[in-house]
Parts: sequence; structure tokens; C-alpha cells
Amino acid sequence: MKNLVGAAILGQSGGPTSVINASAAGVFIEALKQPNITAVYGAKHGVKGILNEEFYDINKEDLKELELLKNTPSSMIGSVRYKLKPLKKDPSDYQRLLEVFRKYNIRYFFYNGGNDSMDTCNKISKFFKSEGYDCNVIGVPKTIDNDLFGTDHTPGYGSAAKYVATTLMELYHDATVYDTPMVTVVEVMGRNAGWLTAAAQLAVAKGQGPDLIYLPEVAFDYDEFYASVAEVVKRKGKAIVVVSEGIKDKDGKYVPEHYTSLSKDSFGHAQLGGTAQILADHIKEQLNVKVRAIEFSLLQRCAAHLASKNDVKEAYMAGVKAVRAAVKGSTDKMVGFERVSSNPYKIKYKLVSLAKAANTEKVVPAEWILPNGKGLTQEYVDYALPLIQGDDKAPLVDGLPRFANLKKILVEKK
Amino acid sequence: MKNLVGAAILGQSGGPTSVINASAAGVFIEALKQPNITAVYGAKHGVKGILNEEFYDINKEDLKELELLKNTPSSMIGSVRYKLKPLKKDPSDYQRLLEVFRKYNIRYFFYNGGNDSMDTCNKISKFFKSEGYDCNVIGVPKTIDNDLFGTDHTPGYGSAAKYVATTLMELYHDATVYDTPMVTVVEVMGRNAGWLTAAAQLAVAKGQGPDLIYLPEVAFDYDEFYASVAEVVKRKGKAIVVVSEGIKDKDGKYVPEHYTSLSKDSFGHAQLGGTAQILADHIKEQLNVKVRAIEFSLLQRCAAHLASKNDVKEAYMAGVKAVRAAVKGSTDKMVGFERVSSNPYKIKYKLVSLAKAANTEKVVPAEWILPNGKGLTQEYVDYALPLIQGDDKAPLVDGLPRFANLKKILVEKK
Repeated sequence: MKNLVGAAILGQSGGPTSVINASAAGVFIEALKQPNITAVYGAKHGVKGILNEEFYDINKEDLKELELLKNTPSSMIGSVRYKLKPLKKDPSDYQRLLEVFRKYNIRYFFYNGGNDSMDTCNKISKFFKSEGYDCNVIGVPKTIDNDLFGTDHTPGYGSAAKYVATTLMELYHDATVYDTPMVTVVEVMGRNAGWLTAAAQLAVAKGQGPDLIYLPEVAFDYDEFYASVAEVVKRKGKAIVVVSEGIKDKDGKYVPEHYTSLSKDSFGHAQLGGTAQILADHIKEQLNVKVRAIEFSLLQRCAAHLASKNDVKEAYMAGVKAVRAAVKGSTDKMVGFERVSSNPYKIKYKLVSLAKAANTEKVVPAEWILPNGKGLTQEYVDYALPLIQGDDKAPLVDGLPRFANLKKILVEKK
Repeated sequence: MKNLVGAAILGQSGGPTSVINASAAGVFIEALKQPNITAVYGAKHGVKGILNEEFYDINKEDLKELELLKNTPSSMIGSVRYKLKPLKKDPSDYQRLLEVFRKYNIRYFFYNGGNDSMDTCNKISKFFKSEGYDCNVIGVPKTIDNDLFGTDHTPGYGSAAKYVATTLMELYHDATVYDTPMVTVVEVMGRNAGWLTAAAQLAVAKGQGPDLIYLPEVAFDYDEFYASVAEVVKRKGKAIVVVSEGIKDKDGKYVPEHYTSLSKDSFGHAQLGGTAQILADHIKEQLNVKVRAIEFSLLQRCAAHLASKNDVKEAYMAGVKAVRAAVKGSTDKMVGFERVSSNPYKIKYKLVSLAKAANTEKVVPAEWILPNGKGLTQEYVDYALPLIQGDDKAPLVDGLPRFANLKKILVEKK
């Protein structure tokens, strides 16, 4: 545990959320207060910005605008999907990072992201240590997928879950408006973990939700699916079905793989999408009913106007706690949440080892999935409800959100 | 002008909006107060409900739930797309309607809808008159398309426009988050009138909007389109393009017509959709960049959580004014808005002849479209901004909207 004096840098990584900037606000505002932190930087496009020596000078920003970051969606300083190669295979990125850290005397590194980003954090931290360079590295969790290990939930999940539940309740009213048969298939993000799709159950709990929910945790069976949809249509005249983009059959094949070969993104994950449309087309063919496929797409991860107040607060505090922990000498940790109680809702902030958080996906527990695989239990509802409480959004100007407007002045290259 | 004593019925027709139920609340709550109105009915699925003698007894509903209708999206009593045949061709529907109206002594008929619904209203009113049956018929305007003639704007437009502008601002932040080239194509509803697509300009006015906007009012030129997108990508690295689902080339061909033959809905309109995806696929092919197609789909017409306060208020008042006008003896009219001033925003309620409102589509005036056809002028922004002002949404319970919950007790058939 070392009390270091030097600059601090924050990087944002992976897919944005409604509250990743709230964590940035927490890191920036807290870091600016710390006497041991001599300068505060924001890496332009995460680790890429460090490699390129491109960082914004946060000391030059107005505090008022940094405060507005709390309600500004997405990644204000730019995100990145960049996977460091294994050190043994190619040490050049690691060496370059160390060179930049030394040059600017960066002693605090905060990285805000999901599994892959925690892995990046961990690798960098290990390398610095092996080279004898003191730098406290703290991960700040973030992902709408809620699949990070070592924390009760992740910032970003509550707001995305609130979007999914609210929008499904609204769609429930819209999709049942005519007296003609109709099937609506809604596709929710989530590659391997069905947490976000599970939020559909919150609408079901209000009696205004979908009829069927399909998570990636349960092997997808086409025959069962079409039969279930047919049964609902026969009984109610219409059906609303929510599917995760990541549903796959017992052999691990995704829905779009029946039709097209999949391209891969730079982390090696399959690029999904189109699942709802494909299923809707097949329902139309089989049942001869009107269908509509709706993909929540990027909307579910950037709808800051529907952010949960608890989520915004926790995202901000995760950033604050990261800085405080680092300044006190912690390193190689990720900020996590421990749930003390659900009713009343109470959490404790804690530090989790990066190694533990990195690259382990936390899926929806089997005991929270209904025996028929098509919905969630009350335990899930009790778990999720506190996370979507309260409203907290940007002030309105002309009826539209007033998002943060940073100057984004790049630090002069040394 | 006759002061009639009898029952009143409201029908909801056409595509739902966030505030069509606010107009229902206005009609119901005001009608319940009127001594000349002996019973208040809500037709189940519009004119179909009248033909089938299926109406809800609004006198049996709780006032508190009727108040909650103001913030409940979609059509609570069920909507319909049903086009009456020309009287000369087939009088059976008209005769059946008259029979039902006589049987229940319905003397006030309110119909909430767009162009087609105003036409339905007008036809029924004319027929009743020719048969000597006294019934005051008042149309209540409604459409997210804002294409109704005889009114400054329509209830439903402001909230949908607010959804489009807010969501595009959020997408602006999300879609520009990586430093890799990317084109996002967003599809907005609007068959022939580009009013809703035009709302993208409100995001542009905030410096957080799309790069290109394509309205159905301007003949779509594929070469120009791909060249414009390429130019933006070259200049900025990414492009956000908003297209109306109704864009068509100089020969009137819609984008999906290049690929599939179109089916027709029961009003004879082409069923659109998929435009954004088709264009995105072609951009990918031509420019070799990552693309994403986003269709706002039903979300743009039922996102009551983003409703404009002005819109909710005006929708409600349109219902109230309809009842008051009918009770005073007006018939064959639609409630319309006349703009007194934009700053400060002030409107006057007026009555427009149904014949004038029916079947005439009001498109975006040519002088409000930029000379290059890819955006809107400040005049449009000045026109639209007052319509999206203020928030007004359902109270939250468990962090989710508490929508109206009607008993929906059907009137016993006579």
C-alpha cells in the first residue's frame, strides 16, 4: 500500500451505458479534490488514448459541466474495444503504456468497464508491478449486462432494466390495441447473461408485460418456442415475446447462425442482432398472423432520460470510492457493491480483486428462472426492483436534455 | 344546432399515440359532468364496437382511474382500422350504426383519430342527417404524423416529436463513442408527411443531432444519398442519418419496393418498414463501414414516459372542448388548434368542418425544408419547440409507471 503523488487518468471502455459518465463525474470530481493527485486526465478512447498520448485535461473543465456528466449518457471522453495481447506474445503495448505513464508521472489509473476492461486493468497492473513502477490501479464496474463477478450488480444495469421494463409496459398497451391477432417479438441486449432480458419480468409483475421471456441461460428449443407462441395467440389473440439477442440452442448456435455466418468483433465475440426479426418472420410463416419485431438496439443503453436514481447515485459513488481507495494505497481492485438488504434497500461499497472480476461472467442463477424456462421468479423481482427506483435526469432546456458540454482540451504532448 | 338529450359514445381509431387516452379522459370526465348526457360509453375497438354493440360503461369507472388515463399510452378502450365502404356501394354498416344509436339513444358521437377517422365521422354524420336522426358528431384530432388539415398541429405529435428529438440526442452520444467509422441509420414513422422525421432537426439545433435528414416530401435520390453519407463519413468518421419510413424516389417508389412487393393494410396504405436496414446494408456494401439500423417502431408512438406536458394538456382539452361544443349543439366538426403566438406559446381552440379535415394530408411546407432537402429551417424549429415543452408522466410505483386500470364493464346488450 503506497501513498503516491502524481497524475490520475480515467479511461472508459466497452459499450456505453446511461451512467458510465456518472462514474466519470465521480472519479473526476473526487480526484480534483485530492492533494496527492497533481493532475487529472481523461484518456481519449480508453487505453488507445494512453497509447497515443491523447488525454483531455480535466483540470481545465468547469465543475458545473462535470456535474452534468452525471446525467449525460454514453462515454463522453470516448470508449474503445481494444484487447491487449498476452504479454508473452507481444509486450509492445505494455511497454508503451509504461513509457507514457512514466513520462506524465501517472500514478493513478482508473478504468471503467466490464469483464474485458477489468482484464485489461489487471494485465497492466501486473506488468507495472513487474517493472517496479508504482501505480495504483482501480477498476470501476460498468455494464448494462450485469454480468460482472464480485459485485451484487453493476452500474448501468438498473437504468437499462428500467428502460426495458417501462418500455415493455408501454408496448403492452400499444401491441394489444387492435382486435386482430398479432405477435410482437422484442429483442433485448445480452450476449451470454440474460439479466437485462430478465427485466421484462418487472413488467410482468405489474400485469403489463410480455407473455414469454427467453434467456440465453436456457437452451433455446425452436419447436417449444413456436408451440408456446401459438398457444398464447390461440388463447389471447396476441402474444408479446421477449428474447435475448444471445439465445442459443443446445449446441450453442445463435438464431442468426441459422441464416448467416457470423462476423466477429475485436474481442472475438459474435456480432448478434436480427434475432427478433428472424423469429418474427418464422412465426408469420407458421401461424399466419401479423408480426412485429422490435429491437431495443442502442436505445436501451443510452436512454438517460429514463435513468434510475439509485443507479446514477451508485455509478457516481463507485467513481468516488475508486479514487478514495487508490489514494489510500489500494491497487489491483475493482469497486463492488454488497447488498445489505433489499427492503429497505441498502448496499455497502467494497473492493474486489481485479483477478476475480476479470473474465468471469455472472449469469442469472438457475433457481431464479421459472421451471418452464420462460420467466423469472419473485426472487429476481425482489432483487431487481430496488435497482430501478427513482428518476434522475438532465435538466431540460427547450424541453430537451441539457447534457454536459466539455471543453475537451488535449494535454500537450511531452 | 340542437340541444340533445341522450347517451354519448367515444371511439378511438387508427394508430395509438402517447396521449390518445388523454383525449379520452377529457371526453369522459367532461361528458360525465353534462346533465344532457344520460350515459357515457366507450366503444370497444372504435366503430367496430358500435357495430357489435360492445361498449364499456364509463359511468361505472372510478374518476381517479379516468384521471390516470391522461398519462397512459395507447388506446385504452381498443382501436381499430376499419374503413366504411362508400354508402352507395354498401349501406349495411351505416344502417347498422343507426340502429344501434337509436336503440341506445346515443345522441353524441365523439371519434378520436386522424384523416381516415375524420372521414368515417363525416360519413356517419351525413348519413344520420339524411335519415333524420339527430346526433351531434365531433371529431377529436389525434396522430403522431401531424398531418391533419385545419389545425396548427395534432395531439400526439408533440410527445412523439419529443421522443424523436430526445432519443436522437442520446443516440448522438452513443453512436460517436468509438473512434472507428460507423454509420447509424434511424427510421422514423411517417408515411407521406415528414413532420415526425423533421423533429430530428430539434436535436440538430442542440448540436447533438443527425447529419442528414430525409423527408418523404423530397424525392429520394439514391446516388445523392450514398454520396452524402460517404462525404460525412469522410469528413467526420461517422454519420447519423435519419430517414422517414415513407421516403420515395421521383416515381413514388418506396425503398422496400426495390426488394419486396408490398402488402396493403385495410385502408389500402402500403405497409412499410425495413427502410433503415435496407439502406444501412447498402451503405455497408458501398462504403465498407460498420453500420447500424435503428427503427423507432412502436416506441415512438407509445413512449408516454417522455410525453410533452403541452401535448398532454392539449389532448385532454381537445376532448373537453369536443363535449362542450357538442352539448351546445355543434356537429360535423373537428376540434382544432389555432396558434396565437409561438413565443410565448399560445393557442386557441376552434372548430373545423369535418369535411375539410377528412382525407386531406398536410405535409411539411416546402419553405421549411432546407434547399438541399436534408434538413429543416429555423421556422420549423420555432414551430415545433413549444409542442415538446414540459414533462407530464404517470406517477411511479416501484419505479414503474402507474397506468390507468379501467374496469371495462360492457354495457348489457339491449
